[in-house]
Amino acid sequence: MTVQINLPNTSYDIIIDKLSQITIDKKVVIVTNPTIADLHLDYLLSKLDIENLSVVKIPDGEQYKTLSTIENILEHCFEQKLNRSSVLIAFGGGVIGDMTGFTASLYQRGIEFIQIPTTLLSQVDASVGGKTGVNNKFGKNLIGAFHQPKAVYIDSSFLTTLPKREFSAGVAEIVKMAVCFNKEFFEWLEKNDLRDGKNIDIAIQKSVETKAWVVSQDEKEKGLRAALNYGHTFGHVIENETKYEKYLHGEAVGIGICMANALSVKLGIMSEDEQKRVKILLEQYDIPTTYNIEDIEDFYEHFFLDKKALDSKIKFILAIGIGDCKITDKVSKNDVIAMLEEF
Amino acid sequence: MTVQINLPNTSYDIIIDKLSQITIDKKVVIVTNPTIADLHLDYLLSKLDIENLSVVKIPDGEQYKTLSTIENILEHCFEQKLNRSSVLIAFGGGVIGDMTGFTASLYQRGIEFIQIPTTLLSQVDASVGGKTGVNNKFGKNLIGAFHQPKAVYIDSSFLTTLPKREFSAGVAEIVKMAVCFNKEFFEWLEKNDLRDGKNIDIAIQKSVETKAWVVSQDEKEKGLRAALNYGHTFGHVIENETKYEKYLHGEAVGIGICMANALSVKLGIMSEDEQKRVKILLEQYDIPTTYNIEDIEDFYEHFFLDKKALDSKIKFILAIGIGDCKITDKVSKNDVIAMLEEF
Repeated sequence: MTVQINLPNTSYDIIIDKLSQITIDKKVVIVTNPTIADLHLDYLLSKLDIENLSVVKIPDGEQYKTLSTIENILEHCFEQKLNRSSVLIAFGGGVIGDMTGFTASLYQRGIEFIQIPTTLLSQVDASVGGKTGVNNKFGKNLIGAFHQPKAVYIDSSFLTTLPKREFSAGVAEIVKMAVCFNKEFFEWLEKNDLRDGKNIDIAIQKSVETKAWVVSQDEKEKGLRAALNYGHTFGHVIENETKYEKYLHGEAVGIGICMANALSVKLGIMSEDEQKRVKILLEQYDIPTTYNIEDIEDFYEHFFLDKKALDSKIKFILAIGIGDCKITDKVSKNDVIAMLEEF
Repeated sequence: MTVQINLPNTSYDIIIDKLSQITIDKKVVIVTNPTIADLHLDYLLSKLDIENLSVVKIPDGEQYKTLSTIENILEHCFEQKLNRSSVLIAFGGGVIGDMTGFTASLYQRGIEFIQIPTTLLSQVDASVGGKTGVNNKFGKNLIGAFHQPKAVYIDSSFLTTLPKREFSAGVAEIVKMAVCFNKEFFEWLEKNDLRDGKNIDIAIQKSVETKAWVVSQDEKEKGLRAALNYGHTFGHVIENETKYEKYLHGEAVGIGICMANALSVKLGIMSEDEQKRVKILLEQYDIPTTYNIEDIEDFYEHFFLDKKALDSKIKFILAIGIGDCKITDKVSKNDVIAMLEEF
């Protein structure tokens, strides 16, 4: 099935299906990493009808999501003499997608790129919305561009080789989408196991549709789109405190969702029963829901290092029950500290 | 006087006048270089009403127009904890403008920037149109973004300290605009000396209006905007062959204009009299109009290293008489070689 993304200046299709033949009559560079290349590159190449094609592999891992890696990809593109009508293909998870899109935005001030995401997280989240970028020592995704793909192909058969933990990390983003925006979808998730192949395509579709709706309202994150950071304000602090080593991004988001919900309960906009239902759903996929905070003041101070808080106020995204949410910078420090103490 | 730039997604004003008070109620970083800072920073600061202000100086010169310098500017911005509503001010020539705009496009995926160009070249050319970027070993401006300024302030009193050669290099771009798009303006230039203070403001205004009209037709250079590269196809080869040392950009463009015109004459779309008038105008400002080509085949091959020729065809921008031009990839190698031999 196809989800169409309509934005002010562009529109493109997200095709959720087994890959069919893709023909491109231009110079193309595939950006991938050694792990994905070993597992799936032959399969991808068997589906591509492209005469002028090269592959560049970048090291696997968030720590290589840097401007220096971008320079390496750019160098490959210049060596291949890509021109302004050439195309990049991002073949991998979120790191590959973010960096390929960013490179495409920079090469001669912008060329096209296509996303073929291979992880659940990137299929449901990173592949929609055109946020591209890299990390630096000040934080994650602080340098980048908005650059929309020309098309996104989501083939869930890539997920068969995905480690169980990474699958679950992707589920956390699916749960995020449901809790924030779609009560019916949340109830469906409570009844259907995503590890069952036929269900995952439905969940991907629902998540992509939800995110597409949000992004079409607010491409550049001036308002509503910030709600997609539900669970992330806390999650980023957790990732940062644990040096991006202990938790996958989606796992930290899982904990972050539970913290945000604890705050919602404290503020009286979510019932304890609803809080529990979200927790149970996350736990069904072994997504962590607890976290041992060493120093609560320290944890709180960490918010201000996060990019969403370069202003002096922290914006919290709080679920209102299940299926709705709000963005607020009016939560008192006392309430946050009290929630963290009880967590 | 004010020229309004209207683009599909944004519009902004170019104010051509002595600087008046500028009030900004946001965090601001001024990007400049030591030369401009020494000459004019006090004057600028006396005109700014900004509470939260810092200055970052980057080394002066095209050789520092690199991603690595961009990282340094970004680092300063992060240290100053700029947020998404902060503003950069580009205070200097084209290099400063291109890099400040590029940094603004990257910082948290895009913040605002203001241009206060201090050289004639940047006042008439680089400050209009939103092209930002840096060089790399493969060529000039190959990495970048389209990012439009929020406002441009052009104060020609900065030109009083501009070296005579740099002033003339700016005139070359003014002549370019007139020959390509505006016969009346060209005739005005033949009669009025730009070294006379009152004339330069008129010439800046005419140039900016002309460029604004071109850019509003074709922001992303899919067609017409490429005509602004008149003189540049040849100019870039000359800069490259002389390692960016012998000629200023505008000087190389001056020679490039003469080469393009020689080709126009050969193809019968410009008269020898018109060719001569352009040459005389350039020479009035001591802009070089001749070039000693060492190896003609080599010179020709150089076109294909230029970004405009990453395709296998070279696009030439040829003046049709004075005041009109065309973009063509249908010039035979023989004609180009013959012109170069006679040049």
